[in-house]
Amino acid sequence: MRALNVAEPWGIDALQLVETPDPQPGAGEVLVRIRAASLNYRDLKMIGGSYGQPQGVVVPLSDGCGVVEAVGEGVTRVAVGDRVVSNFFPNWIAGPPTPEKIGVALGGPIPGVGRELAVLKEQGVSRVPDFLTDQQAATLPCAALTAWRAMFVDANLQPGDTVVLLGTGGVSIFGLQFARAAGLRTVVTSSSDEKLERAKALGADHLVNYRTTAEWSRAVRQATGGRGADLILEVGGPGTIEQSLQAVRVAGHIAVIGGVAAGGGGIVPGSLIGNSARVQGVYVGSREMFEAMCRAIELHRIEPVVDKVFHWTEAQQAFAAMRDGQHFGKIVLEF
Amino acid sequence: MRALNVAEPWGIDALQLVETPDPQPGAGEVLVRIRAASLNYRDLKMIGGSYGQPQGVVVPLSDGCGVVEAVGEGVTRVAVGDRVVSNFFPNWIAGPPTPEKIGVALGGPIPGVGRELAVLKEQGVSRVPDFLTDQQAATLPCAALTAWRAMFVDANLQPGDTVVLLGTGGVSIFGLQFARAAGLRTVVTSSSDEKLERAKALGADHLVNYRTTAEWSRAVRQATGGRGADLILEVGGPGTIEQSLQAVRVAGHIAVIGGVAAGGGGIVPGSLIGNSARVQGVYVGSREMFEAMCRAIELHRIEPVVDKVFHWTEAQQAFAAMRDGQHFGKIVLEF
Amino acid sequence: MRALNVAEPWGIDALQLVETPDPQPGAGEVLVRIRAASLNYRDLKMIGGSYGQPQGVVVPLSDGCGVVEAVGEGVTRVAVGDRVVSNFFPNWIAGPPTPEKIGVALGGPIPGVGRELAVLKEQGVSRVPDFLTDQQAATLPCAALTAWRAMFVDANLQPGDTVVLLGTGGVSIFGLQFARAAGLRTVVTSSSDEKLERAKALGADHLVNYRTTAEWSRAVRQATGGRGADLILEVGGPGTIEQSLQAVRVAGHIAVIGGVAAGGGGIVPGSLIGNSARVQGVYVGSREMFEAMCRAIELHRIEPVVDKVFHWTEAQQAFAAMRDGQHFGKIVLEF
Amino acid sequence: MRALNVAEPWGIDALQLVETPDPQPGAGEVLVRIRAASLNYRDLKMIGGSYGQPQGVVVPLSDGCGVVEAVGEGVTRVAVGDRVVSNFFPNWIAGPPTPEKIGVALGGPIPGVGRELAVLKEQGVSRVPDFLTDQQAATLPCAALTAWRAMFVDANLQPGDTVVLLGTGGVSIFGLQFARAAGLRTVVTSSSDEKLERAKALGADHLVNYRTTAEWSRAVRQATGGRGADLILEVGGPGTIEQSLQAVRVAGHIAVIGGVAAGGGGIVPGSLIGNSARVQGVYVGSREMFEAMCRAIELHRIEPVVDKVFHWTEAQQAFAAMRDGQHFGKIVLEF
Repeated sequence: MRALNVAEPWGIDALQLVETPDPQPGAGEVLVRIRAASLNYRDLKMIGGSYGQPQGVVVPLSDGCGVVEAVGEGVTRVAVGDRVVSNFFPNWIAGPPTPEKIGVALGGPIPGVGRELAVLKEQGVSRVPDFLTDQQAATLPCAALTAWRAMFVDANLQPGDTVVLLGTGGVSIFGLQFARAAGLRTVVTSSSDEKLERAKALGADHLVNYRTTAEWSRAVRQATGGRGADLILEVGGPGTIEQSLQAVRVAGHIAVIGGVAAGGGGIVPGSLIGNSARVQGVYVGSREMFEAMCRAIELHRIEPVVDKVFHWTEAQQAFAAMRDGQHFGKIVLEF
Repeated sequence: MRALNVAEPWGIDALQLVETPDPQPGAGEVLVRIRAASLNYRDLKMIGGSYGQPQGVVVPLSDGCGVVEAVGEGVTRVAVGDRVVSNFFPNWIAGPPTPEKIGVALGGPIPGVGRELAVLKEQGVSRVPDFLTDQQAATLPCAALTAWRAMFVDANLQPGDTVVLLGTGGVSIFGLQFARAAGLRTVVTSSSDEKLERAKALGADHLVNYRTTAEWSRAVRQATGGRGADLILEVGGPGTIEQSLQAVRVAGHIAVIGGVAAGGGGIVPGSLIGNSARVQGVYVGSREMFEAMCRAIELHRIEPVVDKVFHWTEAQQAFAAMRDGQHFGKIVLEF
Repeated sequence: MRALNVAEPWGIDALQLVETPDPQPGAGEVLVRIRAASLNYRDLKMIGGSYGQPQGVVVPLSDGCGVVEAVGEGVTRVAVGDRVVSNFFPNWIAGPPTPEKIGVALGGPIPGVGRELAVLKEQGVSRVPDFLTDQQAATLPCAALTAWRAMFVDANLQPGDTVVLLGTGGVSIFGLQFARAAGLRTVVTSSSDEKLERAKALGADHLVNYRTTAEWSRAVRQATGGRGADLILEVGGPGTIEQSLQAVRVAGHIAVIGGVAAGGGGIVPGSLIGNSARVQGVYVGSREMFEAMCRAIELHRIEPVVDKVFHWTEAQQAFAAMRDGQHFGKIVLEF
Repeated sequence: MRALNVAEPWGIDALQLVETPDPQPGAGEVLVRIRAASLNYRDLKMIGGSYGQPQGVVVPLSDGCGVVEAVGEGVTRVAVGDRVVSNFFPNWIAGPPTPEKIGVALGGPIPGVGRELAVLKEQGVSRVPDFLTDQQAATLPCAALTAWRAMFVDANLQPGDTVVLLGTGGVSIFGLQFARAAGLRTVVTSSSDEKLERAKALGADHLVNYRTTAEWSRAVRQATGGRGADLILEVGGPGTIEQSLQAVRVAGHIAVIGGVAAGGGGIVPGSLIGNSARVQGVYVGSREMFEAMCRAIELHRIEPVVDKVFHWTEAQQAFAAMRDGQHFGKIVLEF
């Protein structure tokens, strides 16, 4: 079979297609023929060598959908022929995160789904609703689950509460779709009026172009009658955290998400005191959270937004598209 | 009666004793003859003119204990002769904070307890356990309640969990006493071995001198078998937040408290992602939290640590002592 | 002005219209000209003399909507001309219930809104969304808030979870509407196919006629892929609790609500062990919960279902209609 | 090796010692040489054939402590020579219960620890604090964890809150010890003044002999200044639930536990409404809860109360002692 590989000197150009022997599933493992995979910002950093310090050769990509082709000894959760997706953290089944549960993630340090045949732990795959295409299903493991956890596990929201989605990347668009399903008021920010129109078509209640309205926190205050946002999905990159702190309500929640925010500016701790704001990091979620999310996706027939599709052998172009930041929702590889 | 007043140009030297007419309680109000008051770092900033932008004349001090001398029309919660303490936020009775509840606090913007006779809202005073002296009772409204809320309302702890107390100021020492009562493991930091010894006498499990052990997060890791702290009361001032982020466990909680931390360094938002840490500001608490705290204080006969006592007419010396930071626990004024 | 009065020997026939002097608001009170009131099962029991042991003369009805006609000394929350509704518990502003907060309710023991002019506590009224008619607004204080609290305060639900609504009374229909807004799957039971059709028109996902399907718990299991309901609003009267216990998922929640269930059969405590089920009584809610509910009602333009309207001078007929149980949603009195 | 077996016609007399081949651990399994086991009321019902409908031959007892003698392929959590205890539910690692997690328990349906050598899942054993004897460690899996979960997972307590422990069986005595460690006020009931004295020696704050004080709820009210209990561990058997409902505070929690209460009287659902009480079944807990409990046990050096010790070949006598109900704390078998 063929697999994507990346190693020193790292970078999109270092991504290669290599031929390797077909793997076999051991006890408790399943062999999955990958049909689709989706890209996350984390993958872009990983192949760039800047996500932690990757060692040796990385088989990138954490999010894949495929069909079980063989099962190892003792496997009972899934059967040959089942369609499954990979879980981001194969060892995080339930409960809050611990070092053991989040110590291993697909696509670095352990091999990801950027290959025709992937051996995965039986415990590390989940079935998904039938109505989803393979490409749609492949978008769920990281971005969708991150938005889900931030909204429905970490924050404590009620219908009618307000969520702010920064930008129109994968997590934010899932956040918008989930918020709509949950009866939450949504404010979406973007630098592009065209993207804001697309967000509106997905049901966004309030739109803010942060190019023309740099102090977007005021728009959030206005949208909420002065109250402020109950939750902000903070993925916006440098400089946004300051506006988030202005936009969040007293005792509100700011979920810090993903690679972009990691390079953002600092939070002065004392700035949290006056309004008892809560800032919490979000690093994907458990399989149990994933399965709850799938119940909601199924009930509401939520269709993930697949913006661009590349053949997996053109992964370099796909990553270049992500780097250029022109996408709205998810970029997917088909196999 | 006499009252403390402070106004421009602000500062300890601007604190004056003035003679004013005796106040009368209106409907829903009570007149309290103050017997003791305690100092908080907030008061030091307030009289220095650097806590927000105080206007006009401030009657400082939020925390007082006294005896009801008269009640206004319709008062039923307390009666003449009752010993009561002032609540920091007279409008925050129950539930999470809102702008209405925390919009008004004693000792600036509205007159505090630095006066012989204080008119307070009936709803804004609480009875306290009988075994406490007036001086001890006067330490509870702000510092004790802040520690209580951080530990038992905002964080979600179980016996055997670990709490880190930074320094030996009022909030930290109450945190230590409450943690002991709640069966929590405690780590106390200080720059003074002598203060660490006093903390040990109060039951601290682990002691760290951050002068000699700048990387005190390692000591916390060691004390917890590598797991990290479940909760950190972050009051330590510039530079400590970085160590706190190193010391907190995966999905642990950092409570940001009080005036000192407000001047601290910045939190890089992305640094919260990897371990799903939660950082939350704490701004005192509600009357309902106060009353729950008093039940615990009564059951465990917790005696607040009154370190230094001044006569209230010597408030300047008292604030100078706070400014110099040599105290362990609370500084109290007697009337 | 005129007022409804009821006293011994109690009963619908004992309900009388009497002339009394116009009341005046005292300090902290408001005078409200009632425009509409809604009936709850509690009111039916109250006028029947079987809700606790009512003493003396009762002015019935807890739920009213009207316009502020005068305000007493010190009133700041509302102004003359404001449209407001009465809160069921005038002293329960925020936080969990306590004896003090729930010790006093409108419509018995203290006078309710069955009168042209009601004096209410300033703290015990709330503004409501403008788009609601007076009649719709008058349905919110008890039934809607009970459903809201059960679903979004006591239970811990996520979108895609399943809620069972027993019957088509006021609480259940509000429960259905709120569940829809919150992205929850709904199962509605009724003895009437016609009512089930009306529930379907409101968006119910699954319908069960418990006349023809006595073991309706099986239908719930089927609707949830065997998992069971996450929440059941238990209002169904004698015999339903047994089915509820069969229908609830492991670690699921049964909210026991209102007057009908009070006469139901017993729960064998041990029957809760195997599936860790939770059963909790619900007795309306706080003003803070009410205001959160109104934010959701406004965002989703939820229109309460007013099934029958009577002039308030025909209150006897209105109560007879409630007693006969033919309503779907709420019965309202217009003034 | 030898093992305890029980089958039809069930009963203590049907318990036999049989010789069977030594088992071998498969992949992911460990072989444990049992050193001590403890009895639970569930075991008594199991060997009596009245815990569900046991099929075939049962190897009884869920709670054992022993030493790992061999490990199967792929085992990494424990090593040969480690001392471990069995987890009650080998598949419940973390998170809330689900049918999959609680579908299998030791000592029926799957073989328990009533044998010299037990093969257990690697995931289904835990290390325990070193200071505990084997006999003490063997008491933890079911009774201690049940008390722990009820108090620190399901209920939401703060120091100074009040817990009522019914009787002096295993769960109640652990509840008392944990409550002491957590700074909770405790009320213990018993029919024996001698047992009450022993409870007092363990730190119980209030004692009630329910023989002489049948209405023990009044004593709870008195002990709490009229407020009522925050939590009641309801294990008391027929008739106690009524008193529990009288003793619990508004919005308080009643944890229904274990075999005895299963035969108790009924809860009228409507009786929960007025005070918003919560009743929840407790069926042991997860491994993650167990490990949190062990951290508390270690910090507080909590020594389980081993009341009676029998050699495991005298299991019939041990079960007879449990049936007669004269124990205080736990009955243990030594190997």
